[in-house]
Amino acid sequence: MSNPTAAFLVIGDEILSGRTREANVNYLAVELSGAGIDLSEVRIVPDEHDRIVAALNELRSRYDHVFTSGGIGPTHDDITADAVAAAFGVEISVREDARALLESRSAARHIQINDARLRMARIPDGASLIVVDSSAAPGFSIQNVHVMAGVPSIFTEMVDRVLPTLAAGAPTVSRELRFDVGEGRIADQLRGLAAEFPELAFGSYPFFSEGVYGTNIVVRGTDPDLVELGFARVRQLRDATPGAGGAAYR
Amino acid sequence: MSNPTAAFLVIGDEILSGRTREANVNYLAVELSGAGIDLSEVRIVPDEHDRIVAALNELRSRYDHVFTSGGIGPTHDDITADAVAAAFGVEISVREDARALLESRSAARHIQINDARLRMARIPDGASLIVVDSSAAPGFSIQNVHVMAGVPSIFTEMVDRVLPTLAAGAPTVSRELRFDVGEGRIADQLRGLAAEFPELAFGSYPFFSEGVYGTNIVVRGTDPDLVELGFARVRQLRDATPGAGGAAYR
Repeated sequence: MSNPTAAFLVIGDEILSGRTREANVNYLAVELSGAGIDLSEVRIVPDEHDRIVAALNELRSRYDHVFTSGGIGPTHDDITADAVAAAFGVEISVREDARALLESRSAARHIQINDARLRMARIPDGASLIVVDSSAAPGFSIQNVHVMAGVPSIFTEMVDRVLPTLAAGAPTVSRELRFDVGEGRIADQLRGLAAEFPELAFGSYPFFSEGVYGTNIVVRGTDPDLVELGFARVRQLRDATPGAGGAAYR
Repeated sequence: MSNPTAAFLVIGDEILSGRTREANVNYLAVELSGAGIDLSEVRIVPDEHDRIVAALNELRSRYDHVFTSGGIGPTHDDITADAVAAAFGVEISVREDARALLESRSAARHIQINDARLRMARIPDGASLIVVDSSAAPGFSIQNVHVMAGVPSIFTEMVDRVLPTLAAGAPTVSRELRFDVGEGRIADQLRGLAAEFPELAFGSYPFFSEGVYGTNIVVRGTDPDLVELGFARVRQLRDATPGAGGAAYR
């Protein structure tokens, strides 16, 4: 049985222009991996209605879950909620529970609600709210699409809120070993291991650090015993490769 | 006249599994912005032949340029060059200039060429090499696709090598101002500015720092005079907004 799949759609001119470094992919990737959901694709698109709608419709039909970040604030460039409604072909309007939440949270922060802020209570029909402490405005889930804020402190809290509600798969287990030789030295043997253990992924990640051309080998899989078996073979390979067992192990 | 467009295809299981933080998007985004090429989309896909081929063919038909990172090393999970050849429907084999380069660079580093390492000299027919000091193995360009290493130190050098060879557009100019009020307070006025200056992008990026809910407003455009004009209006807006001009300006 294979794990559920997911895509992450990052909505953000600021990432594409280079103004801001994307900061949420890694958190989502790690959390999904732990929940046994395979992150299969990430897309970053600009704040343009048609682009968001097209990407949403493609990704939500292809994967079990789609997570989005960005574009749910009060300003003119926050158009994600409307794009989601358009993608699903549903209406969008200010919803009373979202408005009540926004008003009580704003009052506690001595912030007055105006028309712009009220936009954050506009929720597509049929969605359920994602309510977190770190934000007055909620995110929302509609069918298999989970719409979250781009600000990392809020994004992470929304992920933590949503993930336990999803059907989990088998968490991915990984083991990693550092070789103090270039990956070309061990590539043939790794290819053999990958062929011998088709259920495992053997990743090879070269690095250059303090004068050493080295390679980190990562063994990943959903069966912990099998991962240990494959990893034991990687350790044997290192022991058998002259110079591979440098000073620093991890 | 609008600027050339580009997409960035990141090939990497290690990003999607959460093992590695993506580290090249921001560098490419900043450099393209400076060269007047609009980065319009980023995709991250796994090390799977069919996925890479499909993404390449979609992106290269849609954008003026496609940059890729990752998957050009010597190991079994390095399948980018073959996928690029398949996407273009051309042959791929060890090319003599790439082999000579690999051999001389490897000799200088006291590394022996084996079959696995020789894979790095396999280049799709019709491509031109991207040769850099930081890597024995070259990247390559074929038509509008530029294939580069994923290791950031090599990636950046390859970008620096390729960019001057591309037709440049009008570089994007940006100015930024910090408001020490939430974005909801100024959203209506920003919407007005965005409508008044359709050639400019007004980005609004909320932050929470040292107890302050604030907003950074970014004005971007390719006409420097127009950007200054729009920015002057943003400065006026801050002067007219009580509490917006906090202690820290930038």
